[in-house]
Amino acid sequence: MTQFSFDLHSTDGKARTGIIHTPRGDIRTPAFMPVGTAATVKAMLPENVRATGADILLGNTYHLMLRPTAERIANLGGLHKFMNWERPILTDSGGFQVMSLSDLRKMSEQGVTFKSHIDGSLHEITPERSMEIQRLLGSDIVMCFDECTPHPAPKDVALKSMRMSMRWAQRSRDAFGDRPGHALFGIQQGSVFKDQREESAEALKAIGFEGYAVGGLAVGEGQETMFQVLDYAPDMLPADKPRYLMGVGKPDDLVGGVKRGIDMFDCVLPSRSGRTGQIFTRHGVLNIKNARHKDDPRPLDEACTCPACRSYSRAYLHHVFKAQEIIASMLMTWHNLHYYQELMAGMRDAIAAGTFDAFETQFHAQRAQGDIEPL
Amino acid sequence: MTQFSFDLHSTDGKARTGIIHTPRGDIRTPAFMPVGTAATVKAMLPENVRATGADILLGNTYHLMLRPTAERIANLGGLHKFMNWERPILTDSGGFQVMSLSDLRKMSEQGVTFKSHIDGSLHEITPERSMEIQRLLGSDIVMCFDECTPHPAPKDVALKSMRMSMRWAQRSRDAFGDRPGHALFGIQQGSVFKDQREESAEALKAIGFEGYAVGGLAVGEGQETMFQVLDYAPDMLPADKPRYLMGVGKPDDLVGGVKRGIDMFDCVLPSRSGRTGQIFTRHGVLNIKNARHKDDPRPLDEACTCPACRSYSRAYLHHVFKAQEIIASMLMTWHNLHYYQELMAGMRDAIAAGTFDAFETQFHAQRAQGDIEPL
Repeated sequence: MTQFSFDLHSTDGKARTGIIHTPRGDIRTPAFMPVGTAATVKAMLPENVRATGADILLGNTYHLMLRPTAERIANLGGLHKFMNWERPILTDSGGFQVMSLSDLRKMSEQGVTFKSHIDGSLHEITPERSMEIQRLLGSDIVMCFDECTPHPAPKDVALKSMRMSMRWAQRSRDAFGDRPGHALFGIQQGSVFKDQREESAEALKAIGFEGYAVGGLAVGEGQETMFQVLDYAPDMLPADKPRYLMGVGKPDDLVGGVKRGIDMFDCVLPSRSGRTGQIFTRHGVLNIKNARHKDDPRPLDEACTCPACRSYSRAYLHHVFKAQEIIASMLMTWHNLHYYQELMAGMRDAIAAGTFDAFETQFHAQRAQGDIEPL
Repeated sequence: MTQFSFDLHSTDGKARTGIIHTPRGDIRTPAFMPVGTAATVKAMLPENVRATGADILLGNTYHLMLRPTAERIANLGGLHKFMNWERPILTDSGGFQVMSLSDLRKMSEQGVTFKSHIDGSLHEITPERSMEIQRLLGSDIVMCFDECTPHPAPKDVALKSMRMSMRWAQRSRDAFGDRPGHALFGIQQGSVFKDQREESAEALKAIGFEGYAVGGLAVGEGQETMFQVLDYAPDMLPADKPRYLMGVGKPDDLVGGVKRGIDMFDCVLPSRSGRTGQIFTRHGVLNIKNARHKDDPRPLDEACTCPACRSYSRAYLHHVFKAQEIIASMLMTWHNLHYYQELMAGMRDAIAAGTFDAFETQFHAQRAQGDIEPL
């Protein structure tokens, strides 16, 4: 059986391209992982997610443990089979969404207890339980259970939170056990404080993981502050292991993240925006519900090869969006995911060719042009 | 250019199989037409509707004239291009949905005025305007503007209604004009009264149409009454032209209709049921939200080759339905449309082989077995 491993192929500045090998297939990096919250990337069939170029999906431990439950998915043969996606899956630890979605949370050194946002039932997640859930799901890349320190956090609060996450990282590592072909990723915390990021990185390296995430960003600090942290935080993590920036982001966040040495990203933005009519193209963002599209026979982006752009006009997409037709979510999610994967492919090629700076310049220049003129 | 024509290939009792030729492609009969109300078969990409075996879609004049408007669709190149379906499209006349959906209807010999259910705007449909709208849409098979007589109707009310529809049929024919490659279908009315059905059929034949619909059924009269009318009504219509039973129906309605000489059907049932979790299989109807499916690793129907059955368990479909995920509507609509098209294909083959009676017996026997036993 193939083991989990990471081959770094090329670097260009801090930007890196390579391949994460797993028994379920390769992941080309830098990689964008579409989010399949409840065992589906919303409005997409998995074969179509694959057709956009995705090598790996993200599943949400919090949602799946509540419904249909990890035990049920395990009995049905695991998450891959359940959702008809045989390629790699990364699962988060559940911690982030406990804090953002559940009611009546109570956190202690042991873990966190909370009430389900679906039916009010009482649950507990500890590092050990998170490892168990992710094992039941059959996740290929398992994330340590941590506390995502909110922003802004006073320095002493951030430090306390980070240190607890590092103790939980050790407990996660211990509970994960020996699972050939599966990976456990540690998560760096430390908010916007360089010394805490350093302490966190050292703690994680001392434990040892198959990959390392930069956590605690994209929580409201803004792009400028995020990039300031990313100017140093990824460098603190081992160069020979994948680096994953959690919950990021907008297209320019991805370019800025890759530039700073990030290999993996996930975000609901392209799929969620597909359902709300916000469209990403080379020329920035457009909103399909705007009346300017009502009679426009042109595609979203004439250079895009996704089904929405190949076969439908802006006028059609405007119509089905206004009529609240499901096909609007289907086509626009497909387009956005396709755009995100094309962006990642473009960055991978540019890094391999040593032209990442030129890629970045063109990326920003095209966006500065804005959407095509109305007819 | 291919003209519109109908080749009757085989008959078996009253059941018929053949091909309707149109410039946009052949329609194998008996045919089931999925309904694409607002320029989309809900929750389906058009290429996937085609993959289920559909040769033709139905579009709704009422919905499309209100949004995005027939004029806008014409400016964008017609309905086929707009919705990315290059095969034949049949459009209804708008009359039925004016009566069922709009507000403040007022009917006269001239036509009907009404307020839009979307924005309250005032509109009029006359036979002439209905022909104009269907021409703007680019419909391949155009339906006469008529009044669908409600059920039950006193005999004198039904007669008056039918006779007005026959005058409107003449006006529709006159307004349709000379459109090679396009067809106009007349619609028989007359409620449940045999003499009125006869009078209506004679009036339509005197005008002359490329096909004939049996209208005014599936409006609450029940299957037994509908079949009683179908025991004689289709025979009154020309044998060398397609016969279309409007707005029908359940799987056993289709079998009973074909048995009585019907060639074409349309109904929202398979697509609407796909969104509400009602599933049609060889073994009848099952409801995916039933808790019995929660842990069931088996497909909806092990003999079905649709994507929902090939790649997903009942447990998965139950989960995504309960979680209100869009993929539930996508997969279950696909399954239902696939089942309907397989049913039509089975009937076509049986008629060609002269084994329609045996087909019908097996159809009812399989349904009588009911769904597979819970695990």
